[in-house]
Formats: sequence, structure tokens, C-alpha cells
Amino acid sequence: MERLLREILASDVPLVTDVTQHPLRGGGKRLRPALAILGSRFCLSSRSEQVTGLAAAAELIHMATLIHDDIVDGSVTRRGRDTVNARWGDRMAVLAGDFLFGVAFTLVARWGNQAVIDSLSRCVTEMAKGEMVQFGRIRRLHNTEADYLDWIEKKTAIFIAESVQIGATGAGASDEIRRPLWSYGRALGLCFQIVDDVLDLTSSVEHLGKPTGEDIRNGTPTLPVIHALRESEERNQLKALLTDGHSEGSQREVLDILERAGSLEYATERAASYATSARRELAKLPDIPARDALASMADHLLHRTH
Amino acid sequence: MERLLREILASDVPLVTDVTQHPLRGGGKRLRPALAILGSRFCLSSRSEQVTGLAAAAELIHMATLIHDDIVDGSVTRRGRDTVNARWGDRMAVLAGDFLFGVAFTLVARWGNQAVIDSLSRCVTEMAKGEMVQFGRIRRLHNTEADYLDWIEKKTAIFIAESVQIGATGAGASDEIRRPLWSYGRALGLCFQIVDDVLDLTSSVEHLGKPTGEDIRNGTPTLPVIHALRESEERNQLKALLTDGHSEGSQREVLDILERAGSLEYATERAASYATSARRELAKLPDIPARDALASMADHLLHRTH
Repeated sequence: MERLLREILASDVPLVTDVTQHPLRGGGKRLRPALAILGSRFCLSSRSEQVTGLAAAAELIHMATLIHDDIVDGSVTRRGRDTVNARWGDRMAVLAGDFLFGVAFTLVARWGNQAVIDSLSRCVTEMAKGEMVQFGRIRRLHNTEADYLDWIEKKTAIFIAESVQIGATGAGASDEIRRPLWSYGRALGLCFQIVDDVLDLTSSVEHLGKPTGEDIRNGTPTLPVIHALRESEERNQLKALLTDGHSEGSQREVLDILERAGSLEYATERAASYATSARRELAKLPDIPARDALASMADHLLHRTH
Repeated sequence: MERLLREILASDVPLVTDVTQHPLRGGGKRLRPALAILGSRFCLSSRSEQVTGLAAAAELIHMATLIHDDIVDGSVTRRGRDTVNARWGDRMAVLAGDFLFGVAFTLVARWGNQAVIDSLSRCVTEMAKGEMVQFGRIRRLHNTEADYLDWIEKKTAIFIAESVQIGATGAGASDEIRRPLWSYGRALGLCFQIVDDVLDLTSSVEHLGKPTGEDIRNGTPTLPVIHALRESEERNQLKALLTDGHSEGSQREVLDILERAGSLEYATERAASYATSARRELAKLPDIPARDALASMADHLLHRTH
């Protein structure tokens, strides 16, 4: 996959290669390609070239959205490297993302069918829509748990769900195979994003490869914060800290309030319950090695520390 | 087409509708949908619903690239209205463009076939690549006429060529129909962009609905400037004006040099020769009313004043 992605992004124009391969060199979990390949194993007629082509397309779409998200969030570091916007400016980053969308959909046109193209383009639409809604919210501290779940479903879970079934769908798998794969992926995606948001609060720069506490600085309440704003007796202090206090000291105070309210625990339990739902979907699928791999993927994503 | 575009962009989220319909309300030539519909007339099996769906997809891709280009160029006015980036900020504009790409490709998945999806995604790639190359150039004043033609082919002509044949391709037209349509569109696109670049120098804000002289301010040499840098005896003065002088007075001086060197005339002649090439391609197609419409489209785009 790494070699394939590098090959796909090797352009006749050195600058284009530099800009688009830059985020690739930062590494990354390659979660979506891994899921696409594992998902394809449930369809006997899948061909490896087709599956890797679609898996690569999923990763390129993911890369495009990350590059654009880093502009939206003003992020300067990701995976221990400077972001495209930090190195080449916002304008180049806009173009680099568009370029990757185009390359991804060219792969999809080659290896996919109408169902794959339809679902991936809907993912792109929903991800952008979810971020527009979130970005347009003025009083984000009023976000409820339902708002949060709706948001992370759009920005993360649906696309992970599509990634799991993309290889199987491209090979013409039946609905009996595709549906549990999709539902597994959706639950896995929700679990993944909740853990991501907890790690943003509790992990370190060294572990994450990017600054922590970004969501607090951006004023984006994630599940632990939403829980504490609802349950904690210190909710007024918390609200004041989230509105005004963006220093490191105030981040520490926020974390203390979250810990006293059991909010990090609450979020982790919610993530665990989505991991359980994900594994439950797998029971509907044939018992092949890929099923075990998908099951341990759920455990791995739940218990990861970065 | 206007109604269809408005309907497609009517979201359940008011903010999303506002942001994406905003550029729509500024009007526009709807050149690509018109070309797609005219091109489809050469294929007897084309169905109107399919053709308008693909035509709308072409316009939405165009809109997405305009919204992203306005970020790249820092433009604040287009078609007499404020741009999305000017009104909602660069970040929202990034997301709005991505949203439109997603919506467009969902339409393409519904109404297109593999050939259509492939060619449109390649257009997105090439357009972004062309702009990255142009944007990454440090010594743009060294651009040759060949560099310029390569750039406008990528950013404008290929996509217009695809738009002309998209309706016919979607309906399964033969290569004997598709090839001349494509070549007509490419030549028309080159003509269109050269005229656009001349108008940026010679027209008025009132006519264009956007500030003129943008290319000079951005340091982007278009065909008249490239001609003058090559042919004019005043090329050193011109170079100095392009590098340092961004006042209105210096724009007037640039225009005077271009006029004395016959550069505007030269560019207009080049545009006219592409219009002639475009019309020549039409002779390879059956003599139906759409052919006359395409021929007069070439005249219209050549002689337009805005």
C-alpha cells in the first residue's frame, strides 16, 4: 500500500510530487486501506489489484480531507511533521487536496462500480457538510451528546463504514455481506473518533505527533466536555475556562474537572460499547481469518494510546 | 438548469444552502451545462434527465473550482457579489468547495458511466495540478507562450472539452461524435480563456462584475503580457512595472505598453484562430441545429465584452 500510494503520487512535476507525498511520509495508520482489504476477503470473486486500487482511493480521499481540515483548523503539525498548509501555505493546501480528490476518483472510476462511486462521493459530501455545520455553530458549548454523535458520524464513521465494504462492493458482494461490514465500520468509526477525542485531551505531543488540547483551543466540545457540562457540579467554571482560558494552565484545570466528573471514563465506556457493537456485527459474517482480524482491530483502536 | 441547480443545493441545513447557493445567485454564463446539452443532441439515444444531470454536475464542479480559486487568488468579488471566502472566510470556502465536488460526483455516479467519471475526475486533477504549477512558479515573468497555453489548457480548456462531450458520452455516443466534440471544446476553451485574460486587462469592473487587472496584481503574466515581454522595445519598463508597480497608475502604464506593442491585438488574433479551429471541428459532425448553436457560441465567446 505504501509503495502503491507513492507510485500513484509520483507526478511528472516535482513540486506536485513533493506537496502530495509530504503527508504520506509522515506515516499514518492506513486504517481505511487495511479495512478495505480485510472487508474484501468476504467476497470470493474479489481481485487483488482491484481491491488495492479502491483501498488506495479511500486513503487518498482521507488524505485530501486531512489536508483541507488542517487549513480549516489552522493546524501546523500532524504525525510529527509540518502540515501542507504550514509548509506551503493555505492556498497550495487547497489545491493539493483537490488534486488528491481528483486522483482518488480516477482510481474509483477505474476499479469501482456505480455503487462505490456513489457511496464515496456521498461520503465526501457528508464530511464537508458535517464540518460546515460544526464550523458554523456559534454557541458550540450548547452542543448535546446527540449533536456530537451526529457530527462524528458524518466526519468519521460513515467514511470508515464505506471503506470496510468498498473492496467487497467493488467485487459485487451481496447485501448479506455488505450490510454487516458497513455496520461494523460505522460502529468502529464512532469508537475510533471518541477515543481520538479522549486522546486529544489526555495524550502527549510525543505520542500523538500533534499538539494536544486542540479541541479545547478551537472551542470544539467533544464527548468528555459535553458530559462534564451536563453532569459536573463545576460546569460554570468549566464553561468559563472553555470560553476564555486558552493557556496551558487552564487546560490542566479543564482536565481536572473532567476527571472529577468521571467524564473521560464515561467517554471511554461509550467508545467500548461501540467496539462491542462492531464485534457483534461480525458474528453475521462467515468465520474466516479476516473476521478475527477485524475483531482485533476493534480492540486495538479502543485501547490505543496514540 | 437554474432551477435544477437550486434544487440540488437545497440542503436540510440552512447554512449549507446559504453558502452553496450564494455563488449561484450571482448568475454566470452556465457555459458548461449549455455545451453539455448541445453536445448531447448529436446522440439520438440521449435522455433529457440524464443529460441535465450530467450538465449540472459539470457546473457544480466548475463552481467548486471557482470557490477554491477565489481562496487561492484572495479574490473578494465575483459576478458582482462577494465571494464565499470574503463572506464566510477561507475555511468555510474550503469546505463549500469540497461539498460541491461531492454533490457533483454523486450526480455523475447516478447519470454517468465509467468514461464520464474517469474524464471528469481527471479534469479535477489536471485543474488543480495546473494551478499548483502556476502558483509554485517563482519567476513567473519568465513564462513563455507555451507555458501559458499549457496552463490554460489544464485550467480551462480540458474541462470545457469534457463538458461538450459529457452528455453524448453518458448516452453512449460513438468516438466519431465524441472526438470532434472534444476537440471543438478544447479549442473553444483556449479561445474563451485568452479572451477572459484580455478582458481582465481592458474591461471595467461594471462589465466584468469583478475587479480588473487582477492578473497583473497577482503577478500572473497572461498572453498579452507574455507577447509584450517578448516583442516590445519597452520590455524592461514593463518588467519593472509588473514587479513593483501595483498602483492604478502603473496598470494604466502597463496597458499603454501593451497597446503600443500590439499585444492585445495579438492575443485577440490567437483567440480568433482557436475559434476558427473550433468551428472547423464542427464540420465533422452532422448538420443539425445544435451544430449551428455551437458555431455561434464560438463567435459569441470571441466577441463578448464581459
